[in-house]
Amino acid sequence: MMMEQNKPQLGLTTSRIETLTDGIFAIAMTLLVLNLGLPQLSEAMSRTELHKLLLDQSHKFFNYALSFVLLALFWIIHHQEFHFIKRTNRIHIWINVFILMFIALMPFSTSLMGDYPNDWMAEFFFAANLFIVGVLFQCNWLYATKVAGLAENATPKNIMTGFRRGMVIPVVALAAMTLALFRMPTNYIYLLIPAILFLPPFKH
Amino acid sequence: MMMEQNKPQLGLTTSRIETLTDGIFAIAMTLLVLNLGLPQLSEAMSRTELHKLLLDQSHKFFNYALSFVLLALFWIIHHQEFHFIKRTNRIHIWINVFILMFIALMPFSTSLMGDYPNDWMAEFFFAANLFIVGVLFQCNWLYATKVAGLAENATPKNIMTGFRRGMVIPVVALAAMTLALFRMPTNYIYLLIPAILFLPPFKH
Amino acid sequence: MMMEQNKPQLGLTTSRIETLTDGIFAIAMTLLVLNLGLPQLSEAMSRTELHKLLLDQSHKFFNYALSFVLLALFWIIHHQEFHFIKRTNRIHIWINVFILMFIALMPFSTSLMGDYPNDWMAEFFFAANLFIVGVLFQCNWLYATKVAGLAENATPKNIMTGFRRGMVIPVVALAAMTLALFRMPTNYIYLLIPAILFLPPFKH
Amino acid sequence: MMMEQNKPQLGLTTSRIETLTDGIFAIAMTLLVLNLGLPQLSEAMSRTELHKLLLDQSHKFFNYALSFVLLALFWIIHHQEFHFIKRTNRIHIWINVFILMFIALMPFSTSLMGDYPNDWMAEFFFAANLFIVGVLFQCNWLYATKVAGLAENATPKNIMTGFRRGMVIPVVALAAMTLALFRMPTNYIYLLIPAILFLPPFKH
Repeated sequence: MMMEQNKPQLGLTTSRIETLTDGIFAIAMTLLVLNLGLPQLSEAMSRTELHKLLLDQSHKFFNYALSFVLLALFWIIHHQEFHFIKRTNRIHIWINVFILMFIALMPFSTSLMGDYPNDWMAEFFFAANLFIVGVLFQCNWLYATKVAGLAENATPKNIMTGFRRGMVIPVVALAAMTLALFRMPTNYIYLLIPAILFLPPFKH
Repeated sequence: MMMEQNKPQLGLTTSRIETLTDGIFAIAMTLLVLNLGLPQLSEAMSRTELHKLLLDQSHKFFNYALSFVLLALFWIIHHQEFHFIKRTNRIHIWINVFILMFIALMPFSTSLMGDYPNDWMAEFFFAANLFIVGVLFQCNWLYATKVAGLAENATPKNIMTGFRRGMVIPVVALAAMTLALFRMPTNYIYLLIPAILFLPPFKH
Repeated sequence: MMMEQNKPQLGLTTSRIETLTDGIFAIAMTLLVLNLGLPQLSEAMSRTELHKLLLDQSHKFFNYALSFVLLALFWIIHHQEFHFIKRTNRIHIWINVFILMFIALMPFSTSLMGDYPNDWMAEFFFAANLFIVGVLFQCNWLYATKVAGLAENATPKNIMTGFRRGMVIPVVALAAMTLALFRMPTNYIYLLIPAILFLPPFKH
Repeated sequence: MMMEQNKPQLGLTTSRIETLTDGIFAIAMTLLVLNLGLPQLSEAMSRTELHKLLLDQSHKFFNYALSFVLLALFWIIHHQEFHFIKRTNRIHIWINVFILMFIALMPFSTSLMGDYPNDWMAEFFFAANLFIVGVLFQCNWLYATKVAGLAENATPKNIMTGFRRGMVIPVVALAAMTLALFRMPTNYIYLLIPAILFLPPFKH
């Protein structure tokens, strides 16, 4: 019945959502590199200053690696979830559209942190972006498994593990938002995310 | 006979068109983020102005979300239509190429609205872009179902629902073009599009 | 034997080449839109000049449409050829890498024509880019069908039609290169390409 | 047992990794073209200088072709390796994420060489980027075949050939890094890579 209600109605399968998702992740991950662009070389500036320029923006390389790894994590979680989610419906599609909207925003948030180092607003913006993606991922998972029954093969244990894993990024992002509000640096707190996800209870 | 005429002649299946379409939608949706770029930070400008800069361009975030949602809508409609369209021919391919040409133009139209806020010409340009995509989508649907018989499994009811759904965007875009000509703001009228498409007669 | 020689040796199937090709075409087609960027708005410039700015660069819209259509044509021809080409080998892969290298160059060549209107050098560069892609496409087709036997199901008639179709773009591009050398405008000669390809002997 | 341990645990198949990889390679290869952008045309500059501008940056065209060919080589090697690698696990996925991180960095490294010609630091940076990708590719291959047994059908001979092929790029990149440290030009040494890979013992 669910099958009948969703599939023919929409003509959109989860594999199409996965294709668009793969495309947007690949592009967002690659566009991060545009943030590394050096300040335009003025003629007056000596050639020998390149290593100084690169050192000056070493924080941008850290941000590049950080955002790349976070996007890769989201991409992995997305496919882990869609391993179970086999059908879709209108609400589920729109949750995914909003996920992609905030994924595609990540290169911009990363560029804020690079162009305004040590500015609390830039760090807050980045953390908030991450928080929203994380929360939408939880919505996606809970809606698909608990509300709409789009993942019939997921056992209660699978659902719980997915939920537990999905809490890590929003909680750390919330902590980063709080730190930013108190004008404290946030960069290193994100290293908690891979650290926690490698602990046994978060392993799938 | 139709089968024989189209497939071997062209060597292009609808699945290839869908792949190119997914790619161009993913890139156009992700390139929208480039429009959010802040004005280049001059050294003289104080660091504390970042939140002011972000507020100053809050209309750009609205435009980003608007264009992203509209592109997602077109992407959904495209796959809904290709759920029925199983074959293709020369004219059908070229209708789709022109659809993609105007889809790929959307980041530019969006950037006009962002860089020239309250300029009627920018709003007209964006509405016209949307109108053209909408009309080409209707051509795609009517040509495939009514003229060339490329969607043999589509029932008259399917065809009618698709047509009704496909009218929403061109009609709203036309209204926006008219408002722009009379120097009235157009942004909020686009919110009608998702509102209408959620009404029962437009549901697939 | 050919099968044995190629497949296990390389581990690369034609479907992987088609995937990379679809990706690079989709990105090149979408990046064309970056050439439409308006000159940076200086504060002094009046807001009402937008329609003048757009008119001033109307040639860029023509170039955008032209390059988009030409890339779409190449994409169509590519899939028509790979409808027959079912295997690949080392030389064949590298012909395709060089095709993609010059396809990815098209947004740059297009931007030259847009930024240096009426400059013969820009028009020559664009025509030469097109010529090289066209010649490489012919190499791809002739190598696959005549030399390496990668398209066993292609009849002599298929091969001949493919060859005839593949001559159109190089010949027109060569004519455009000649016109450019004599400082004559080249834009409109490209309209010959779709016109000729719609004639019966060039139809697949 | 391995099957049981990996697949359901992760929900990520090698085909998904290949899709993301194809996307990131396609985008990185196409973004290379952005490095060719000419210096902004100042009004004072005469139109006739275009051919001079193009000649002035002829080294950028060489760099574009070089990076494009190197990325194509990596893409080919990647698919040759995944022809054998049929399963994945957590460590294997993260090796691949780091591969993609440094692949996506290539357009930046290439732009350094283009914007700072003859600067040893730029050449060193590019060579180091290439070296890291090459080493990560070896890790990918050795981990998959020797450590985790993810490529059960690979014969010892396959593994050895893959290893031998995989040594070429890191060794040449190391030589380029050394040359750069001694302020010697590095560009042409990369031509060794295709030359060596075409020798019989490196053929797959």
